[in-house]
Amino acid sequence: MNDKRPLILVVNDDGITAPGIHALISFVKSFGEVIVVAPDKAQSGMGHAITMNKPLRLKKYGTIHGAEAYSCSGTPVDCIKFGTKVLAKDRKIDLVVSGINHGLNSSINVIYSGTMSAAIEGALEGAPSVGFSLDNHSLDADFSGCENIVRTIVQFLLDIPRERRYCLNVNIPDISKEEIKGIKICRQAKAYWDERFVERQDPFGDIYYWLTGDFIYLDEGENTDVWALKNNYVSVVPTQSDLTDYNAITTLKEKNEFVQ
Amino acid sequence: MNDKRPLILVVNDDGITAPGIHALISFVKSFGEVIVVAPDKAQSGMGHAITMNKPLRLKKYGTIHGAEAYSCSGTPVDCIKFGTKVLAKDRKIDLVVSGINHGLNSSINVIYSGTMSAAIEGALEGAPSVGFSLDNHSLDADFSGCENIVRTIVQFLLDIPRERRYCLNVNIPDISKEEIKGIKICRQAKAYWDERFVERQDPFGDIYYWLTGDFIYLDEGENTDVWALKNNYVSVVPTQSDLTDYNAITTLKEKNEFVQ
Repeated sequence: MNDKRPLILVVNDDGITAPGIHALISFVKSFGEVIVVAPDKAQSGMGHAITMNKPLRLKKYGTIHGAEAYSCSGTPVDCIKFGTKVLAKDRKIDLVVSGINHGLNSSINVIYSGTMSAAIEGALEGAPSVGFSLDNHSLDADFSGCENIVRTIVQFLLDIPRERRYCLNVNIPDISKEEIKGIKICRQAKAYWDERFVERQDPFGDIYYWLTGDFIYLDEGENTDVWALKNNYVSVVPTQSDLTDYNAITTLKEKNEFVQ
Repeated sequence: MNDKRPLILVVNDDGITAPGIHALISFVKSFGEVIVVAPDKAQSGMGHAITMNKPLRLKKYGTIHGAEAYSCSGTPVDCIKFGTKVLAKDRKIDLVVSGINHGLNSSINVIYSGTMSAAIEGALEGAPSVGFSLDNHSLDADFSGCENIVRTIVQFLLDIPRERRYCLNVNIPDISKEEIKGIKICRQAKAYWDERFVERQDPFGDIYYWLTGDFIYLDEGENTDVWALKNNYVSVVPTQSDLTDYNAITTLKEKNEFVQ
């Protein structure tokens, strides 16, 4: 009860067996007590999904780099809820750390990303939080170049007063430590996914589809995360969860068109 | 090909059999050609999830109030992608209409909501879009009081030039038409869910959990959606998908703390 070491909750969306979360635990374990809760299977692209219509299972996984680890049958956001409400018991989480994702979550990908939705849910629970993503989808990705970046940002988030808490979306280019030019504070670049469905036929003659697509980049700004990554910087986008379009409020009110 | 009637895509998150989407189709069908794609099962709380790791099925459901309807094995956002990329073929969707959700999607619920994530995905695809939700979770909810509101807002969105397109989150109190005081343009109220896990034991002695919780309202503003609904107004929050916290960018840059 007198443990003054920070309580750090580690989650991800690639699942408890993903190399990215094992690397992340190894990078943050010296900062405090670490609790790990991750999905029991890959949950990429789950966005801010929560499990409402079916029961959830939580299983002890064992220890990873000395940290107690659990797997959960739900989504990344469910993992945050298990971490803060069940595993932390009556203790406060000092920091939520999500990732390291196998693949970037820059630009519009933030809204599809389980990694970042978990970090945002941590922020809604009142904890400083950060999601890390590396520009490499492979299971064999080398996360060692992320260590210094992860440790710098985690140290910063633990050092500042809790009322100044941030929710950071950190994306890391897949290049050597020496090639990384630094860390840039950015805004989310404007972009969207132009999807295609690839059609296949199953052995029974029925059609099914794979969702695939191209990332369409609409932004020329030099203050965006996509620009930073292209130019060998680590991008840091502070995020929040108010989706209100304030400019549209102004226009709608000025025009007073459909308000009865 | 010379069909100048608007092409309207109707989706939801409660599934193709939900009374809310059937009511919505009946309210919008006179405005143009209607295509319906909805999940083949309830997908509440799916947020902005997309289906990346498994193939998707699309099935012809039949007609609902004269509109061609399809069910999809995926999420509400997947439904938007099927509607715009497969079913609309090379035609442009003029309006995405999502709902009517059985239950409110005001305040922070917007980020968990499949209904609103579908509307936001429609906006990312360049279409004006709107999600409707009624403050009644029951399958027996009476949607007839929503007709005038739905038709007013749909008419407005179809009348304005496409470049002025909005993505609107419309929540409707579950009271009689006569009691509704009007439509209010609002911002998203600050709030969060304080969750609990209800523990149960299965017949094999293993523990499972149900996610439940209380809505914690943190906002005193009279310009919020929660205020409007409490005071018998329909709330309309224009939404967008840039999660950047611009105030935090300013603070982080001023303090210049962890930038290398």
